[in-house]
Amino acid sequence: MPAALGENRYGKSRVRLVRVTRHGDRHDLADLMVSIRFEGDFAAAHADGDNRHVLPTDTMKNTVYALAKNHPVDPIEEFAIRLARHFLEGNPPLSGVVIGIRENLWTRIPVGGSPHRHAFNSAGAERRTTRVAATRDGITVHSGIDGLVVLKTTGSGFAGFHRDALTTLPETSDRILATRVRARWEYWGGDVAWSATWAGVRRLILETFATQESPSVQHTAHAIGQAVIESFDGIRWIRLAMPNLHCLLVDLKPFGLENRNEIFVPVDEPHGLIEATVVRQGGSTAESA
Amino acid sequence: MPAALGENRYGKSRVRLVRVTRHGDRHDLADLMVSIRFEGDFAAAHADGDNRHVLPTDTMKNTVYALAKNHPVDPIEEFAIRLARHFLEGNPPLSGVVIGIRENLWTRIPVGGSPHRHAFNSAGAERRTTRVAATRDGITVHSGIDGLVVLKTTGSGFAGFHRDALTTLPETSDRILATRVRARWEYWGGDVAWSATWAGVRRLILETFATQESPSVQHTAHAIGQAVIESFDGIRWIRLAMPNLHCLLVDLKPFGLENRNEIFVPVDEPHGLIEATVVRQGGSTAESA
Amino acid sequence: MPAALGENRYGKSRVRLVRVTRHGDRHDLADLMVSIRFEGDFAAAHADGDNRHVLPTDTMKNTVYALAKNHPVDPIEEFAIRLARHFLEGNPPLSGVVIGIRENLWTRIPVGGSPHRHAFNSAGAERRTTRVAATRDGITVHSGIDGLVVLKTTGSGFAGFHRDALTTLPETSDRILATRVRARWEYWGGDVAWSATWAGVRRLILETFATQESPSVQHTAHAIGQAVIESFDGIRWIRLAMPNLHCLLVDLKPFGLENRNEIFVPVDEPHGLIEATVVRQGGSTAESA
Amino acid sequence: MPAALGENRYGKSRVRLVRVTRHGDRHDLADLMVSIRFEGDFAAAHADGDNRHVLPTDTMKNTVYALAKNHPVDPIEEFAIRLARHFLEGNPPLSGVVIGIRENLWTRIPVGGSPHRHAFNSAGAERRTTRVAATRDGITVHSGIDGLVVLKTTGSGFAGFHRDALTTLPETSDRILATRVRARWEYWGGDVAWSATWAGVRRLILETFATQESPSVQHTAHAIGQAVIESFDGIRWIRLAMPNLHCLLVDLKPFGLENRNEIFVPVDEPHGLIEATVVRQGGSTAESA
Repeated sequence: MPAALGENRYGKSRVRLVRVTRHGDRHDLADLMVSIRFEGDFAAAHADGDNRHVLPTDTMKNTVYALAKNHPVDPIEEFAIRLARHFLEGNPPLSGVVIGIRENLWTRIPVGGSPHRHAFNSAGAERRTTRVAATRDGITVHSGIDGLVVLKTTGSGFAGFHRDALTTLPETSDRILATRVRARWEYWGGDVAWSATWAGVRRLILETFATQESPSVQHTAHAIGQAVIESFDGIRWIRLAMPNLHCLLVDLKPFGLENRNEIFVPVDEPHGLIEATVVRQGGSTAESA
Repeated sequence: MPAALGENRYGKSRVRLVRVTRHGDRHDLADLMVSIRFEGDFAAAHADGDNRHVLPTDTMKNTVYALAKNHPVDPIEEFAIRLARHFLEGNPPLSGVVIGIRENLWTRIPVGGSPHRHAFNSAGAERRTTRVAATRDGITVHSGIDGLVVLKTTGSGFAGFHRDALTTLPETSDRILATRVRARWEYWGGDVAWSATWAGVRRLILETFATQESPSVQHTAHAIGQAVIESFDGIRWIRLAMPNLHCLLVDLKPFGLENRNEIFVPVDEPHGLIEATVVRQGGSTAESA
Repeated sequence: MPAALGENRYGKSRVRLVRVTRHGDRHDLADLMVSIRFEGDFAAAHADGDNRHVLPTDTMKNTVYALAKNHPVDPIEEFAIRLARHFLEGNPPLSGVVIGIRENLWTRIPVGGSPHRHAFNSAGAERRTTRVAATRDGITVHSGIDGLVVLKTTGSGFAGFHRDALTTLPETSDRILATRVRARWEYWGGDVAWSATWAGVRRLILETFATQESPSVQHTAHAIGQAVIESFDGIRWIRLAMPNLHCLLVDLKPFGLENRNEIFVPVDEPHGLIEATVVRQGGSTAESA
Repeated sequence: MPAALGENRYGKSRVRLVRVTRHGDRHDLADLMVSIRFEGDFAAAHADGDNRHVLPTDTMKNTVYALAKNHPVDPIEEFAIRLARHFLEGNPPLSGVVIGIRENLWTRIPVGGSPHRHAFNSAGAERRTTRVAATRDGITVHSGIDGLVVLKTTGSGFAGFHRDALTTLPETSDRILATRVRARWEYWGGDVAWSATWAGVRRLILETFATQESPSVQHTAHAIGQAVIESFDGIRWIRLAMPNLHCLLVDLKPFGLENRNEIFVPVDEPHGLIEATVVRQGGSTAESA
């Protein structure tokens, strides 16, 4: 028989969870989407229909709820580590497990100048993320941000690039730069101030984007990564994916008007996509996914 | 021949526009999506292929850009009125035109404690909207909010409802209430502090949602509408659409755990949908769409 | 107090249902999404928090499942009528109810040249729809199609249109015409061959789109409507919404190439939107929504 | 300085292209979305803002159109190979390029029993895909299918699985199995009957899904992979991603009804996700992404 089982994994996606923690003077809210992936010895299930090694994905879902009842889910990195360890311990056929969590962010509704005790307003499409990969040998923790949409109306150009016979793009020293930042970074070890670090990286992304004079998305991504690596000793590397959400200058000349960088049309497609990893020197980008 | 042309309209949808206004010390940013609808005498186009009355939808798009170059687009209500008048004046076959605008909201990135002069961060999925319907006889202006997502962890119940043979829902005096508010309201006249009113309505929606003791989504919607009508003389009516974004209590008993309103699973479907209009007494809900 | 309750309604959206009917030699499959809307005397719920007239939306969902167990759901028009009548009978405060159903379509997987007995392949993004509006006085039935995407590579032009100072669109006698047809039509009465009529209307839409020489989307929409009205006596009117999914000719001249209507870029936004109703003469377009 | 540039790449996403090929008796239609990724020596752009090695992503887009004008785009594998070679030849800093193409599929509208010469109907949400990765050393070609949605109403069970303290799932010998197959496979070499192979793999996926008695999604995925490897000598490996689109049995007992596998509710989240690779023995799953 010429066919053999190669790489395989299975799990549960999009397990949603809202957890309310009831303090005397206020409620705290956590709103998560969890995914679980198992890797290990599942050949018999694939080849023979023997499910004895297979924990149902329904049980993975139950586990998220049961562990969320008994333990905090904030910060998400610690909850993901807890889930990973639980699954490794209970499932000998497992060689590795990957837990992903995406957190929807909420702010308290201000009432009479004060944040309300139990009413919240969605903080938007941005997500705090984590990805914990655990094997019998150790554990790797990533944190990240998804959907951080930023735009600057000047302080960005693109010139001096390679031209070939099909290049028609004019050089520009002043354009709109808009992107939806997706960042992910890996920690050296496990003793991290998770939420403070996350907030600090987020602030550095925003400030670097705002203040850097950008000659290209590549340079901006690199500058962000460099700032993060230089500021946070605990981070091994950071990877940035920054689509170029083009805002094209509208040609107003047919209407007898001059467009002095005032009127733009944003387009979703096509779009540039720039991805760069900045690594602490001596560090490595090796990762399990 | 038994067939005749009935109601018809045409236009352009999803005309996107970013306008940068360059002041000495800062840039202002407006990010809009515009739609245009024409109604009028277009029978010849439909029945005979005679396009002489048909302004191309491509020209509608051009008009958005040309008028945005020569005039402010903030507040969106005034820009929509300007577009509506322009189209009525230039197109005698038109009986009416409807302009819709959805505004993406941005906040300035804070750098060193101050809002940056030209760098912005998306304020999320919420949209400011307007809808201007103009005929040869007059003009109607609606303002609105879309995608205002709110959640409260207590202060909401649902009991005393009608039960039939298929009703299984238990009564509750304490549940999560979550919704994505879509609001639209109509003004009496045209001399309105558009942006201040919009911000005031938004604040009332948030505060009423947070503080009202809710016996049903219907009652909350009505309370919000009532607060708005009582606070803003210029508003004839307000309509609220509030889907019930159910957060279901997870049954933890199979795991030997008690769920004291702590662990919930949010579900997108199915969902309740409550729509209510609150009208200034003596006013009317009549509108052209 | 200046505020009064105006128009209001409530219901359940996105109730999904798969029904398997087990015949001896094959299984039949129906895959539906149902929505329910109640209108009536719900003032006490809104104003006073008195829920005695309010049937929970959760019960609406239960009702879909219970009635689907005891009765066929195919054709969807009959199932929607059954649901509407059930709710009117059991809820005296109701003045009207609207049932909407969207049906996902499946085809049997061919195996060895024959359609399989119980295995199916999604027929795509197109949906069969119905909308039944029932009051104490009577019932109105609409059927429809959503998401019928069609494209023709020739046989379409656009010329002779109104030009103003901002018109830059060139006339064309040969362009790509692409659209996503949404059609809805109303029946005179209730004794209809629902599925045969639906299939016949769909066929007429496709054939008219394919064969008509199109001077505009308006004319094509009208021609489709006319063909339907002339062919199906039981239909009072048909409404067509046809966005113009523009396929723009790519300018290849900068590369020294001539584009003889060969290379196009489809764009999602902005897009034209044409909506037309064709009415049986003597008929009316009046409808409850 | 502790930070260094690690992995990086850039390119253009979502370049859409419709190509019409005009034969005497009919038009052929191709509808593609192309993405391009460059990897190579771009350190100066990131670190120094020196763009001399950077071909604009706008030029990548132009290249798609210019090459589509001068060469066939069908089959997509050959067009992707052509694009990859073009970019490698013209850009010495490039170490590798990856071209991805997703093809929207269309069928001819039947008119009077015959397929129309130039009018088409979308074949649905399914996509034909390819991914060509080329370096200075060689080229790797993947083909694939995305969005192939299938469902069987019987012939599927799930039993004998691992149970832990949190497992509540009952065993079943008869359930609905529904999934959205994503398949990708790699070829040994370049002399392939691309379209015939693609159609053959698609047919095997459908037939195996329909006829195999499924004890788990894992076993079904493996059976599909095995059938493909055994039938197509030119394929090194095939990877299948099959989310379990759960159709849950509705509990009708509260209404005094028995649900004999008739009434189901499909849920989008959470969902199981099974991924498996089947490899020709002696082959390898190594790939560049």
